[in-house]
Amino acid sequence: MPRILTGIQSTGTPHLGNILGAILPGIKLSNNTRNESLFFIADLHSLTQIKNSEQVRRNTFSVAAAWIALGFDYKNGYLYKQSDIPEVCELTWYLSCFTPYPMLANAHSFKDKSDRLHEVNTGLFVYPVLMASDILLYDADIVPIGKDQKQHLEITRDVALTFNRIYGDTFVVPQASFSENVMAVPGTDGQKMSKSYNNYIDIFEDEKAMKKRVMSIVTDSKGVAEPKDPDQCIVFKLYSLVADKNNTEELRKKYFAGNFGYGSAKNELFGLLLEKFRNERKNFNELMSDTGMIEKILKEGAMKVRNFATAVLQRVRGKLGYG
Amino acid sequence: MPRILTGIQSTGTPHLGNILGAILPGIKLSNNTRNESLFFIADLHSLTQIKNSEQVRRNTFSVAAAWIALGFDYKNGYLYKQSDIPEVCELTWYLSCFTPYPMLANAHSFKDKSDRLHEVNTGLFVYPVLMASDILLYDADIVPIGKDQKQHLEITRDVALTFNRIYGDTFVVPQASFSENVMAVPGTDGQKMSKSYNNYIDIFEDEKAMKKRVMSIVTDSKGVAEPKDPDQCIVFKLYSLVADKNNTEELRKKYFAGNFGYGSAKNELFGLLLEKFRNERKNFNELMSDTGMIEKILKEGAMKVRNFATAVLQRVRGKLGYG
Repeated sequence: MPRILTGIQSTGTPHLGNILGAILPGIKLSNNTRNESLFFIADLHSLTQIKNSEQVRRNTFSVAAAWIALGFDYKNGYLYKQSDIPEVCELTWYLSCFTPYPMLANAHSFKDKSDRLHEVNTGLFVYPVLMASDILLYDADIVPIGKDQKQHLEITRDVALTFNRIYGDTFVVPQASFSENVMAVPGTDGQKMSKSYNNYIDIFEDEKAMKKRVMSIVTDSKGVAEPKDPDQCIVFKLYSLVADKNNTEELRKKYFAGNFGYGSAKNELFGLLLEKFRNERKNFNELMSDTGMIEKILKEGAMKVRNFATAVLQRVRGKLGYG
Repeated sequence: MPRILTGIQSTGTPHLGNILGAILPGIKLSNNTRNESLFFIADLHSLTQIKNSEQVRRNTFSVAAAWIALGFDYKNGYLYKQSDIPEVCELTWYLSCFTPYPMLANAHSFKDKSDRLHEVNTGLFVYPVLMASDILLYDADIVPIGKDQKQHLEITRDVALTFNRIYGDTFVVPQASFSENVMAVPGTDGQKMSKSYNNYIDIFEDEKAMKKRVMSIVTDSKGVAEPKDPDQCIVFKLYSLVADKNNTEELRKKYFAGNFGYGSAKNELFGLLLEKFRNERKNFNELMSDTGMIEKILKEGAMKVRNFATAVLQRVRGKLGYG
């Protein structure tokens, strides 16, 4: 049974783009019983950028709550937070001794970050080694990633192969799996939806705030009476990503027919989001008002995956002479 | 009671230079009951350079055996190996997120190493962060170091101060302690005694090998009959570092008197080493033939210091939001 591992950034409540592009496909994957799916919240990675304990905790809770509320089957799958398995840091040290320094210094993500950020810490630099450790610690076979993570996975494979060459077969060498058609979800301004562009829609917000976001979607300046092109409209695009085919076709006709303003389209989108995610919103808010419950679910997940981690670490320590 | 922490490199059996320059002063320090002394064998650091499990294990054993044979009071002090407290790797990750990347990239020891070694791995680069973790994990107050470690200790202090500034008092900020007169022990060729120059004398070797080393000490070419200058002679220098004052004065007179060849001087040095370290040689060999005993002593040491480590880590995790 192939073991699939996915790391989830803990940078705050996931927005609609995260949900449609990553979370719902991830949940679908985890419900496939031919796979063994590990999902972890990368709260150790987040320390490279967030130095506020309250924010770290809140982010972890809201990410976990979103996954659970959206239907992640945490009883059959594995949902845990990275910091509950500190053994990953031990493996990171071992792996760092097999990771050529120039390989990290030349990694494009580090170059990007060190150009962009005013504070470049060593954690940012070592990031790909922690990521390798996240993967190798659990004998993961398959790692679904976006194109931006391709180089990091190559580093992981490279380090695993180097280690195996010196000490004999030790690590499972993971394969990347690239989603064929990662859903491109536009934000309210038409760019890719992203926290950092502040163009996101948060389906877990209260209705008023959420409506404000939907109403702020940028459109062209066609009058109410004019016929409109749905394929040029962000409102329609978002609607079509959430609605079923019939409703999407109906909205398309309204666009073409005219006498249907963008305000009305936005109202339809808002209504759809409320309706579609009614239960998820309720579940999310219940979980967030009882973070002890989330903590419990994550601890149970950690207990289950710790068995994998311990077995791999024992294998590695034996090979290195620390047995 | 100030807590003093000393890391011991695990690069093989300590030679006479290590013993006179570091181990015996260290043991003296640990026997001072006004201090609490932690000594650890840095076998995780050694992975940056040694990729052979048998060598890692053998080095750890011979270093521990030397310290114990030379009189380290492991019952009252703390002697442990770094890899028995893998929590040090967890703290290393946290600290790396507070260590500016340029601070490590510009550290002179890394520059030296990356010029010298054909394989520069990330472990070598992150080395000073692991060293900071070694120190901060145990709330060490004082770290006796040589001049070459001065910059590393400054990095440790800097990282601790940065963390304390953001999260409030968390780490004890350690002080360096520089030995006033670190003993300069010459090797058989007159350079500083060192494994890497292959000019060392190993007092734990069998007699024949040890004698060969002593006999290879470089001298000038004065004939037997001529008077000689003891202060220009490596043999005399080594003798004086080991013998008491009276014997040293007697040998000095023989040098000045003439009719006393360098061969005879070497024989006196060899005899002195055998006599002076008779019990230590015996104890060392007994320990090395029962490495289970060494392992047991190190495990007991680790159990004791783990309490310090756990307390500090709990404090740190709480501050970071991983509590």
